[in-house]
Amino acid sequence: MKGAVVSEGGGVVAELTRPTPAGDILGALVALFGDLHETARTSGRDVVGAGVATPGMLDEQRGIVQYASNLDWRDVPLLDILRGELRLPVAVGHDVRAAGLAERTFGAARGSDDFVLVPIGTGVAAALVTAGGTITGATGAAGEFGHIPVIPGGEPCTCGQRGCLEVYMSGAGVARRYREAGGEPLSTRRIVARLGEDPLADRVWGEAVEVLAHGLTTLTLLLDPRVIVLGGGVSHAGDALFGPLERAVSAGLAWRDRPAIVRSGLGGDAGRAGAGLLAFGAAR
Amino acid sequence: MKGAVVSEGGGVVAELTRPTPAGDILGALVALFGDLHETARTSGRDVVGAGVATPGMLDEQRGIVQYASNLDWRDVPLLDILRGELRLPVAVGHDVRAAGLAERTFGAARGSDDFVLVPIGTGVAAALVTAGGTITGATGAAGEFGHIPVIPGGEPCTCGQRGCLEVYMSGAGVARRYREAGGEPLSTRRIVARLGEDPLADRVWGEAVEVLAHGLTTLTLLLDPRVIVLGGGVSHAGDALFGPLERAVSAGLAWRDRPAIVRSGLGGDAGRAGAGLLAFGAAR
Repeated sequence: MKGAVVSEGGGVVAELTRPTPAGDILGALVALFGDLHETARTSGRDVVGAGVATPGMLDEQRGIVQYASNLDWRDVPLLDILRGELRLPVAVGHDVRAAGLAERTFGAARGSDDFVLVPIGTGVAAALVTAGGTITGATGAAGEFGHIPVIPGGEPCTCGQRGCLEVYMSGAGVARRYREAGGEPLSTRRIVARLGEDPLADRVWGEAVEVLAHGLTTLTLLLDPRVIVLGGGVSHAGDALFGPLERAVSAGLAWRDRPAIVRSGLGGDAGRAGAGLLAFGAAR
Repeated sequence: MKGAVVSEGGGVVAELTRPTPAGDILGALVALFGDLHETARTSGRDVVGAGVATPGMLDEQRGIVQYASNLDWRDVPLLDILRGELRLPVAVGHDVRAAGLAERTFGAARGSDDFVLVPIGTGVAAALVTAGGTITGATGAAGEFGHIPVIPGGEPCTCGQRGCLEVYMSGAGVARRYREAGGEPLSTRRIVARLGEDPLADRVWGEAVEVLAHGLTTLTLLLDPRVIVLGGGVSHAGDALFGPLERAVSAGLAWRDRPAIVRSGLGGDAGRAGAGLLAFGAAR
């Protein structure tokens, strides 16, 4: 759990990071907010609101987490709980969509009406931002970019389907495929470091980039974003990622230019910065 | 070119349909509007505005058609031209997105905030409607559902790519694939009529439905629509389409229910009904 006291301009006044407990996550969350509030008060700050960005399927209007597998939450009325505990204006948002809001406000997509943020970490997600706002979908489940089917009948995914994008292109996916093809058990970062010297690393990474390009081509044809922002650990791969990815997306688009593809300006702090923006929104 | 005098409730007062001329399309369009206006006047109607729904890539705000291959238009300032000629409030919209507006107002997606309209005719397109409005994209090119890559390295498309959705599932695509696999030159409608008696028809149609299901699964994971509305000639295939399609989309979604899949309530009139709605919007 990453928390911070942030100023309205996005500046971080203080940070607190704690492991998510196995048991009482809500209690730990309330305690984290309490400590952040205390930190703000002792530094003479006026706390106007609290924001939280959570994974899972979310009813953002009512602030209910319908399902978050990693937290083992089902139908948790997070907004009402936090309002009761914190006695502050509270906003509850989706972690990836909140990160998209932060990229639009402070980051790599500043001022852009049409962009997608694709965080590529252990798994893959997306915040889809259009002129009308961030797409949440009818049930709060929009943006499942990691699970779009890319290879028909492809390798199995933990979600129960086959050929999902994140099976091939994600921190977990690249490492697994490298290992299963006979490679050493290495992190994706270390596999990328071997490119050009290790043919297996070249092959697994090349396939990952092709699959990501396929997915981003689909996103571009459907949503026509001005900018594609890549975040998450895998976005640090630098030229090994951006060069071949840009060429493959261009090659996949017949009659139109490709959008700019850039790295997140906020990195791992985007979700937290987005939670701060939600808090100031709630306080208004 | 399909024109109509419509009342604010969507009722059609009079219709005029003319072939799109090879030459002066703009002149023919202005003449069609003039005749519609005259028709309205003689029936005692007060004309408050004019709306046009056009194919192509469109800057809807400025009413400029950037590119429409079928009309051979590039950077045509349609809004300004029609305003000058018609001396009425004018609105210019994209044909598929205008059809989506009509489905939302009068048709199968009435009152729905999150839905997609997928017209499947000679080619395939989509209107993507979210709580924030219809997605137009950064360059007006959103919704190119017919050209999302579905089969990596698949059959060539007229767009210059391979494996696009409409190569397999469209009026033109099904007929071409049936013929190229040794079948008679039949329309897609007649191929569908042979299902259950003609193994080649079964195979080509089955593959088309699988490809459409793949595309709609991707759309669902990205946009999370409440309803998928199918339009165009192919949507008249009835149970041969909807039964297997619903099963395949459900099978492609691991942890979530599929959206409802329904046939357009307006059919081929949706674009014209949408143009009427745009006209009343311009008059406000």
